[in-house]
Amino acid sequence: MKVVRWTSGDKPGLELHDETVPTPGPYDVLIKVKAASLNYRDQAILDGEYGGPTKSNGTPLSDGAGEVVAIGEAVTRTKVGDRVSASCHPHWIGGPPRPEYQLHSLGMTNDGWLAEQILVHENAIVHLPDYMSYAEAASLPCAAVTAWTGLNLSSPLQAGETVLIQGTGGVALFSLQVATMFGAKVLAITSSDEKAERLKALGAAAVVNYRTHPDWDKEILALTDGRGVDKTIDIAGEKTIVKSAAATRKGGDISLVGFTSGFGGGLPPIDILARGLHVAGTAIGPRANFEALLRAMALHEVHPVLDQTFPFADYQAAYQRLKSGNHVGKVVIGVAN
Amino acid sequence: MKVVRWTSGDKPGLELHDETVPTPGPYDVLIKVKAASLNYRDQAILDGEYGGPTKSNGTPLSDGAGEVVAIGEAVTRTKVGDRVSASCHPHWIGGPPRPEYQLHSLGMTNDGWLAEQILVHENAIVHLPDYMSYAEAASLPCAAVTAWTGLNLSSPLQAGETVLIQGTGGVALFSLQVATMFGAKVLAITSSDEKAERLKALGAAAVVNYRTHPDWDKEILALTDGRGVDKTIDIAGEKTIVKSAAATRKGGDISLVGFTSGFGGGLPPIDILARGLHVAGTAIGPRANFEALLRAMALHEVHPVLDQTFPFADYQAAYQRLKSGNHVGKVVIGVAN
Amino acid sequence: MKVVRWTSGDKPGLELHDETVPTPGPYDVLIKVKAASLNYRDQAILDGEYGGPTKSNGTPLSDGAGEVVAIGEAVTRTKVGDRVSASCHPHWIGGPPRPEYQLHSLGMTNDGWLAEQILVHENAIVHLPDYMSYAEAASLPCAAVTAWTGLNLSSPLQAGETVLIQGTGGVALFSLQVATMFGAKVLAITSSDEKAERLKALGAAAVVNYRTHPDWDKEILALTDGRGVDKTIDIAGEKTIVKSAAATRKGGDISLVGFTSGFGGGLPPIDILARGLHVAGTAIGPRANFEALLRAMALHEVHPVLDQTFPFADYQAAYQRLKSGNHVGKVVIGVAN
Amino acid sequence: MKVVRWTSGDKPGLELHDETVPTPGPYDVLIKVKAASLNYRDQAILDGEYGGPTKSNGTPLSDGAGEVVAIGEAVTRTKVGDRVSASCHPHWIGGPPRPEYQLHSLGMTNDGWLAEQILVHENAIVHLPDYMSYAEAASLPCAAVTAWTGLNLSSPLQAGETVLIQGTGGVALFSLQVATMFGAKVLAITSSDEKAERLKALGAAAVVNYRTHPDWDKEILALTDGRGVDKTIDIAGEKTIVKSAAATRKGGDISLVGFTSGFGGGLPPIDILARGLHVAGTAIGPRANFEALLRAMALHEVHPVLDQTFPFADYQAAYQRLKSGNHVGKVVIGVAN
Repeated sequence: MKVVRWTSGDKPGLELHDETVPTPGPYDVLIKVKAASLNYRDQAILDGEYGGPTKSNGTPLSDGAGEVVAIGEAVTRTKVGDRVSASCHPHWIGGPPRPEYQLHSLGMTNDGWLAEQILVHENAIVHLPDYMSYAEAASLPCAAVTAWTGLNLSSPLQAGETVLIQGTGGVALFSLQVATMFGAKVLAITSSDEKAERLKALGAAAVVNYRTHPDWDKEILALTDGRGVDKTIDIAGEKTIVKSAAATRKGGDISLVGFTSGFGGGLPPIDILARGLHVAGTAIGPRANFEALLRAMALHEVHPVLDQTFPFADYQAAYQRLKSGNHVGKVVIGVAN
Repeated sequence: MKVVRWTSGDKPGLELHDETVPTPGPYDVLIKVKAASLNYRDQAILDGEYGGPTKSNGTPLSDGAGEVVAIGEAVTRTKVGDRVSASCHPHWIGGPPRPEYQLHSLGMTNDGWLAEQILVHENAIVHLPDYMSYAEAASLPCAAVTAWTGLNLSSPLQAGETVLIQGTGGVALFSLQVATMFGAKVLAITSSDEKAERLKALGAAAVVNYRTHPDWDKEILALTDGRGVDKTIDIAGEKTIVKSAAATRKGGDISLVGFTSGFGGGLPPIDILARGLHVAGTAIGPRANFEALLRAMALHEVHPVLDQTFPFADYQAAYQRLKSGNHVGKVVIGVAN
Repeated sequence: MKVVRWTSGDKPGLELHDETVPTPGPYDVLIKVKAASLNYRDQAILDGEYGGPTKSNGTPLSDGAGEVVAIGEAVTRTKVGDRVSASCHPHWIGGPPRPEYQLHSLGMTNDGWLAEQILVHENAIVHLPDYMSYAEAASLPCAAVTAWTGLNLSSPLQAGETVLIQGTGGVALFSLQVATMFGAKVLAITSSDEKAERLKALGAAAVVNYRTHPDWDKEILALTDGRGVDKTIDIAGEKTIVKSAAATRKGGDISLVGFTSGFGGGLPPIDILARGLHVAGTAIGPRANFEALLRAMALHEVHPVLDQTFPFADYQAAYQRLKSGNHVGKVVIGVAN
Repeated sequence: MKVVRWTSGDKPGLELHDETVPTPGPYDVLIKVKAASLNYRDQAILDGEYGGPTKSNGTPLSDGAGEVVAIGEAVTRTKVGDRVSASCHPHWIGGPPRPEYQLHSLGMTNDGWLAEQILVHENAIVHLPDYMSYAEAASLPCAAVTAWTGLNLSSPLQAGETVLIQGTGGVALFSLQVATMFGAKVLAITSSDEKAERLKALGAAAVVNYRTHPDWDKEILALTDGRGVDKTIDIAGEKTIVKSAAATRKGGDISLVGFTSGFGGGLPPIDILARGLHVAGTAIGPRANFEALLRAMALHEVHPVLDQTFPFADYQAAYQRLKSGNHVGKVVIGVAN
């Protein structure tokens, strides 16, 4: 089978290999990969900017979907022929995060989805609803689960609440879609009027162009009668966090889910104290959230926003597309038909 | 001003009085009543079947809406001319219930809304969204807030979950509307095919006629692939509770919000233990929930289902309508224009 | 190695076998058993009174402790020589219960601890604090984790709260010890003055003899100035539940953790509704709770209450001791030195 | 009666007045003040460094205790002769904070306790346990309730958890006492070996002198086997927050409760994201927490740590003592006997 692997080094490259198909151990599931998708993290690993344990010469990509082709003898949760995807941290089934879950991470410590076949522990398996394509399902494990988790991190999201999202990347658009399913109102900031129109078309109630309105926090306050939003999904980190705090209501939540504008910056503790904010960080979430997400998407027949789908052979082009920052929604690699 | 009061006795009657308009104390708000609405509880008080403290010769009805006409000197939360309603337990602003909140209860220990004017503590005041009529707002304080509270009682309601409601009374229909705003799926049981059609028209995904299908719990299980619903809003109590438990998924929630089928019956503890259920009871909820409800309704421009509106002079007919059990949605009394 | 297995049939017996030591799969941990302990459930299985999936000719006992003697190639959480115990449901690491966790259950669907060696998935492993003996550790997995979970089921236990426990079995005594660590006050009911003295010696603030005071709920109310306890750990089910509800404060919690008095009985829904109770059932709990328990016990150097320890060869006598109902604390079987 | 009031201006002084005793409105309670206590906030108001609404020429001090001498006609929660204290925000009875609660704040928007008599709304009243003196009770409303709230802010405190406190001020020492009641382990940092000894005598398991060990976060990590504490009560803000984050375990909580080292500084969002922290701010807490605190203290007969008690006439000396930073525990003013 064909499989892409990192080369060695702090800033690894990517190499295509031809290997024997692995045999499942007792708890393993072998999946024929139909599609995979890219996240900001995948480029950060190549740029040597992502911490945490990484398997040397492992296979990248935490996100994908496919068809079960073989199972180990102890497997009870799936069978050959099932349409499935996998939770990024296979043993994080439910509850809050624990450091041990990061010891098993697809596309990091375990081989990921940029291959024709992948082995995963059955604890990771989720089943796909019929209406959803493999390419759509492949876009979900990291970004969409992060959106669901982030929107329910410090307190549960309620119908009628107002949520602020940032940009048009994967987590932002999934946050828009998930918040809409919960009956919430979504405000957004973005870098261009074209992207603003796209966000409105996807359901955002109002969008602020942060290039033309650098004091975008004041615009968000004005849009909420001076009160601020109930929840902010902060994706950029360094350059947004102080304004995110100013734009969030007293007692509201900020969920930190990304670092796309850098690793620096700093939120003065008095900003948190004076407004009684709840600021928390999350990386992805448990399988229980992935399943809850799939159930909600199936009920409302929500389709993920896909930017572009590249054939497996052009995987390098897919990385380039992500790096360009011009994408709206998820960049996908189609592996098999 | 005209005001209705209970006569004395265990099964009090209702009498119309003409009285001077009361003067607000420092924290009080005087409201010109525009509309009031009836709940099952109001009839139960007349039938001598409702426990808890009751003001002798008090004015009935926990639910109403109107215009502020005077305020006390210490009032900060409202002003003359505001369109308002009031939380049933004025000092229950947020958080879980406490017995002390029941010491102040509109239409029970304090004079209620069946009058041309009413005095309430400012802690009770909620402001009405513009799109909502006084009659619609008058239908909310008890039944709609109970629905919101009940749907989020043991765990928060999430998009994609399945909720079971019972009948076509106020709490049932508000539960249907609130659950729909949260992106949940609603199943229902009711006593006739006509009511079933009405429930479907209001958004129920499927409805079981419990007269023609006395084993309705099995029907609900079949509708959920044998899994059971995530949450049941149990309104009838005695005659439904055992089947409600059987129709709720392992680890799911049952919120007890009514007793319309009687005060007896019993749920075997093994049914709770074996299925890992969370069974809890609630009476109404805090003002925070009323405000969250209003905000969500305003965002989605949801209109309460009103059965029929009677003029103030015909208040006895309104009680009769409720007692008949033929109503779908709330019975309202229009007090002033 | 020596291993005890159920014979076939609805009311299985127990047979001693001599078998080859199993080889660990990639994720498996092989443990040399030092001690095991019995729960009410283990007798109920023999009596044909316990539902749920059971491995035919499996090895009984969910609870034990020992030393790691071999590990599979993928194991990261433990190493040879570690002093360990195991969570009853190996894949329930954190968060709320899910039906899938019951598909893997030691002493039910998987071979349990009544053997000289046992194989468990590494997800189940917990490490023992130095001060704790194997016999003490073997007493914890089911009863003590249930106590921890039950005390924090519908709401977290707080210092200063009052907890009601029932009897002198394993869950009752662990509830007493755990509640005391949290700074709570413990009231208890029991069947004899001797047991009452024992409970007081272990830290109960007051104990009611339910044989001499059949209206024990009134005694509990009197002991709490008429308010009722904050939390009740209901262990007996059928014969206690109605009085448990009467003895619990408005808005308080009842955690159903056992069925020692039978599978019948019934709690009228109005009892739950009128008092705003939260009634929930739990079976054991996640490994996260087991680890939290061990950490708290180590900090306070708490020793489990052991009734009597039988040698492996006398395992039938250990079952008899449990069946007698005369035990106070846990019945243990010492397997190796 | 004698009453102290702020003079006008951004940095107000304090003046003693002689005034008529006020008459209670319907919901008011008149209390003869027995003792009052000072908080960091009280000095910050005089220094013009504290934001939020302040009554012009109001009476300072949020904290005190005394005996009820008169009640309004609608009062139900207390009676003449009761030994009481009051919650700082009278209408915050339970649940999360809401901006409206700050509109009523003793010693800020309402007259506080530095007077011979004080009027408070009955919603604020708490009753004192018999074992507790008025001076002790007067030390609780702000600092001790903040400690209770902060320890249970993002997640409930559990027995066996490890808590980090900072310094020897009111909130720090109450956090130590409350955490101990919950069965937690307390680590501390402080500025001198003398204070370290005092903290150990009060129950701290280990104390780091941050003057001699400026990298105190590394010391705390070493004391927790590299894991970090479960919860940090951050009291200093600007100069501690970055190290507080480094010393808190992955997935742990930081509760911001003070700003004693300044209003600047900044926590990089990546520190929160990479460690999955929950960072939240709180000011005091609801009356429900005050009552829970009193109940726990009464059960364990905990005595607050009082630094020094000044007579009413020497109130300026009490402010000086607080400003000196030499106090350990609470500075109290005794008003009447």
